Amino acid sequence: MPVLEPAYQIPSVAEITTSLERIRAYLESAAPLRIAGSVMDTGPDHKFAPLSYPMGVIDSGLLAAAKATGDAHFNDLPVRQFQFYRDHLAQAHATEDSGERGPMRNLVHPTSLDSCGAIGTAMIQARLADVGPDMNEVIQRWAEYVHHQQYRLPDGTLARQRPFDQSLWLDDSYMGPPILAEMGKLTGHAEYSDDAARQMELFYAHLFLPNLGLFTHGMHMSDPENQPRYCWGRANGWYAMGLVTVLDALPENHPERAKLVKILQTVARGWASYQSGSGLWHQLLDQPDSYLETSCSAMFTFAIARGVDRGWLDAKLFAPVAVTGWNALQTRIDDQGHVSGTCIGTTYAADYVYYYRRPMTDDVHGYGPVLLAGSEMIELLRNPHLRIDLRTGAIMANARTAER
Amino acid sequence: MPVLEPAYQIPSVAEITTSLERIRAYLESAAPLRIAGSVMDTGPDHKFAPLSYPMGVIDSGLLAAAKATGDAHFNDLPVRQFQFYRDHLAQAHATEDSGERGPMRNLVHPTSLDSCGAIGTAMIQARLADVGPDMNEVIQRWAEYVHHQQYRLPDGTLARQRPFDQSLWLDDSYMGPPILAEMGKLTGHAEYSDDAARQMELFYAHLFLPNLGLFTHGMHMSDPENQPRYCWGRANGWYAMGLVTVLDALPENHPERAKLVKILQTVARGWASYQSGSGLWHQLLDQPDSYLETSCSAMFTFAIARGVDRGWLDAKLFAPVAVTGWNALQTRIDDQGHVSGTCIGTTYAADYVYYYRRPMTDDVHGYGPVLLAGSEMIELLRNPHLRIDLRTGAIMANARTAER
Amino acid sequence: MPVLEPAYQIPSVAEITTSLERIRAYLESAAPLRIAGSVMDTGPDHKFAPLSYPMGVIDSGLLAAAKATGDAHFNDLPVRQFQFYRDHLAQAHATEDSGERGPMRNLVHPTSLDSCGAIGTAMIQARLADVGPDMNEVIQRWAEYVHHQQYRLPDGTLARQRPFDQSLWLDDSYMGPPILAEMGKLTGHAEYSDDAARQMELFYAHLFLPNLGLFTHGMHMSDPENQPRYCWGRANGWYAMGLVTVLDALPENHPERAKLVKILQTVARGWASYQSGSGLWHQLLDQPDSYLETSCSAMFTFAIARGVDRGWLDAKLFAPVAVTGWNALQTRIDDQGHVSGTCIGTTYAADYVYYYRRPMTDDVHGYGPVLLAGSEMIELLRNPHLRIDLRTGAIMANARTAER
Repeated sequence: MPVLEPAYQIPSVAEITTSLERIRAYLESAAPLRIAGSVMDTGPDHKFAPLSYPMGVIDSGLLAAAKATGDAHFNDLPVRQFQFYRDHLAQAHATEDSGERGPMRNLVHPTSLDSCGAIGTAMIQARLADVGPDMNEVIQRWAEYVHHQQYRLPDGTLARQRPFDQSLWLDDSYMGPPILAEMGKLTGHAEYSDDAARQMELFYAHLFLPNLGLFTHGMHMSDPENQPRYCWGRANGWYAMGLVTVLDALPENHPERAKLVKILQTVARGWASYQSGSGLWHQLLDQPDSYLETSCSAMFTFAIARGVDRGWLDAKLFAPVAVTGWNALQTRIDDQGHVSGTCIGTTYAADYVYYYRRPMTDDVHGYGPVLLAGSEMIELLRNPHLRIDLRTGAIMANARTAER
Repeated sequence: MPVLEPAYQIPSVAEITTSLERIRAYLESAAPLRIAGSVMDTGPDHKFAPLSYPMGVIDSGLLAAAKATGDAHFNDLPVRQFQFYRDHLAQAHATEDSGERGPMRNLVHPTSLDSCGAIGTAMIQARLADVGPDMNEVIQRWAEYVHHQQYRLPDGTLARQRPFDQSLWLDDSYMGPPILAEMGKLTGHAEYSDDAARQMELFYAHLFLPNLGLFTHGMHMSDPENQPRYCWGRANGWYAMGLVTVLDALPENHPERAKLVKILQTVARGWASYQSGSGLWHQLLDQPDSYLETSCSAMFTFAIARGVDRGWLDAKLFAPVAVTGWNALQTRIDDQGHVSGTCIGTTYAADYVYYYRRPMTDDVHGYGPVLLAGSEMIELLRNPHLRIDLRTGAIMANARTAER
Repeated sequence: MPVLEPAYQIPSVAEITTSLERIRAYLESAAPLRIAGSVMDTGPDHKFAPLSYPMGVIDSGLLAAAKATGDAHFNDLPVRQFQFYRDHLAQAHATEDSGERGPMRNLVHPTSLDSCGAIGTAMIQARLADVGPDMNEVIQRWAEYVHHQQYRLPDGTLARQRPFDQSLWLDDSYMGPPILAEMGKLTGHAEYSDDAARQMELFYAHLFLPNLGLFTHGMHMSDPENQPRYCWGRANGWYAMGLVTVLDALPENHPERAKLVKILQTVARGWASYQSGSGLWHQLLDQPDSYLETSCSAMFTFAIARGVDRGWLDAKLFAPVAVTGWNALQTRIDDQGHVSGTCIGTTYAADYVYYYRRPMTDDVHGYGPVLLAGSEMIELLRNPHLRIDLRTGAIMANARTAER
């Protein structure tokens, strides 16, 4: 798929809004809510599974778009979904109690971080914005699952028992910490916030490669020192999104805030240093002959835009990275709101051939990150403390302080 | 030359055996044994010089194929060659004594590591497998040459006096240590084993670049600190083959074994981290715009497959690298048993233009490593302690322990 | 623009001289001297602005070509330019005194390093070669400006207040130190030499990335630790040219000489390690998918050739880099003396998209460096202490000692 040449200019809020609107319209048509026999309908494109983590990111993205644009229509889909889940909650309990596995089992019996973390994050964000139905029963269950029931390494890092006994997946830096951080914000209970902050530090300690400035996808704890690296774009992107989501939700005076901001500055420097000349990032970030991938590019654009907007990242150094990232993302959104160029679902594997060859398509994983990136770009462009000016090759910046 | 897309799957023993058979058939037709005037005939393709180091690797590869497949026909060519050398030994002595340089001078008067190390390794491997004629006179002479007569740096590292006074070539990590290690195994004399182990440590200490995870091709000792790096694929491959050959031949309880296994884990991590998306490796390992090269890809595949099979490398982390390496190598073996895509003979040079432009053809250097890689893949697939499963993106592994 | 395949061979002095002659002829026709209203004519190709820093490098290159070839015609253009400046000096003073900004304001009122450093360097080089008119008044003013008036960081590093308050530009390692070093040589005043040497050390300390072996383009002192890297070719080239120009002009027994030679060895190793397979270097040195850029390639070729010629760099390790660099540069000089493939003027920016997309054309920045590179190649080929032999993949070298 050829990359359309993006213009080297500051995008307008109107342009971005148009792109977000198109995506919203497509999602409204393609993400229906219907139980089809024993499973849930994934829509005419067989892509948008309710109660899946990509749908959770889409919900967060739509909520963010509503806030950034002021257009409450963006809330419609998440509200409709959450209401649907709530309406079927009793039935889900009954099915589970009968020993069967129903299509909405996640609501009452989460079995993995993927099954609840990202959707729960969106549900709490909706609560905090006072949007949609009361999902507190589900939120409580899921936060509890992540906080107390999910498998962890001895040092407390959220982990999985696949593909091997003790496997650390960088993906879980989004599947776990954000719901904990948002839960801390919703309830004021420090134990959630503390766990969220600690997770971001642990993933950084285990998987960041300082020499390269990037994260490797995962680690098998059987032999932590001899792991080849696979700097998969989206896994790095999950950490990027996880970190700024946690930072945004943590109490302003949280004791780990300064350390997390410092981590953000370090990892953002790495991401900026691997942006391609197109503005997008590669499927394998340090492999310029791997394809340019949409979802990770959107994730970095979102995280860097938020970092600059909040004053965590130096606007002079990072605003142009977000701007050029967004300009390139625009070329991957078509008039019908399809988002193309995204790597399909990917396991934590052990050879480059696997990663290079994951098919690239208009996969569901691209939609949520692009919604978040566009929404955060609007926030950035509307930030009264910043004036971004690319034409001089520079940014006039006076970022909001971290105190705000 | 286009790379055929290799399948992403576990190859079958039958497929690999077919490839090995084709190569064997081609070699039988293309590597005749005949003295043509004052030199030895190199066959109809002018490629297969007897008593050359690439032929030594081919002999090792054929012996390994006989063992892996159980088909003794693979031994035919080395047996015929060794018998031919033995039959001409008296004549070689006579020619040398007369002050002339005959076509089989290497047998009685080795003058370089290239002239004896790899062929001697194969001869000892044949002795240990009780295959072919008694070549002990030649073996003794060559092992002695490598152990006592070859030029060395003051610290004992095997080196050359070309292109400059004190030039360290990574290639010599195969041209020297394996014959020493096999000689230690044949004779039980620790001095050979110790020298072999020490060489692998010295080459690692001088030429490995920890920052990059790769070896540079060589070093001029006049200025060890200011050398640009040339991470030539085949030179790294020589070290890979040298290391696993030495490890296999060393006594199980050799005091340096643990250190060498640790080195293997470190360097294998580097090689895995530079495998291309095709499964092959690049002529210059860290330069993705240099061509994909067969001989180094076969060398890494062989070394990693053996490392996994023996339990030196974590099967979860490394078996997929060998599998995808072999799948790609299969695309470079045609129906007539030609092995294509190999860099021709290459000196230790001082500019990238030289390395990038070395012609790539069905050069003799590709045959031995591909035979070794295929044979070791068969051993790996038949290892009863391992079940390799790529489809889940993972390997179910329970590697043989290092103790076996 | 396709790269013509350069031959892998030692170029002849005659070939190089022909290339230099063609460039000289083109410059004679394209760089007229005429005041056009309130500005100076930049010639029929609107490219060659007198009193600009690229013209200063061209002047240095022509002076070097005269010396290397023995053909004094190369001096004609700088002599004519300097005479023109001298003839208009009184008028420039008068205009400035009247409060207007005339086209030759730089002569009497320098306002930036760009406005005087490179041209001043050439003027002093002409003085030292006893070529052209006495420009001492201007030389004094400019050296004084650089030494005492230009903005500096608290540690004394020459810096700029654009694009931000405290911006360090690697470009200034040529715009500042060379005029200081040449002034030290002209006047024998150690304060200039000391300042020049110190600047090269400071730029190295601030902007060199040891992990990578390359310099990043610049640094905003507001946040020195979190800067993404932009290893722009020409900025690295400015340092290369600055360093060998300073080394050549410093007193032989200068106390910082050994340290600067050591820096040269370190940075040259980095440049050699990033040369492309074509012999040229990339616009972003560590990004093989960025275009091959002429000006930086000429700068490295010049600096490495001089380093080998003077004995600062090991000829065995570096002469082939210069030779293959020059061979590739020849493909970018056409029969009419145009030098193509050069990145246009470039600011210190904060995103890769900017650097990747700077247009590449027969920009003025390519001419001076190519003249310097060709001239220094002639010096190198005529060095009686060196015999360069590429055919064996090696260089027979016996470099002039540093004592000469």
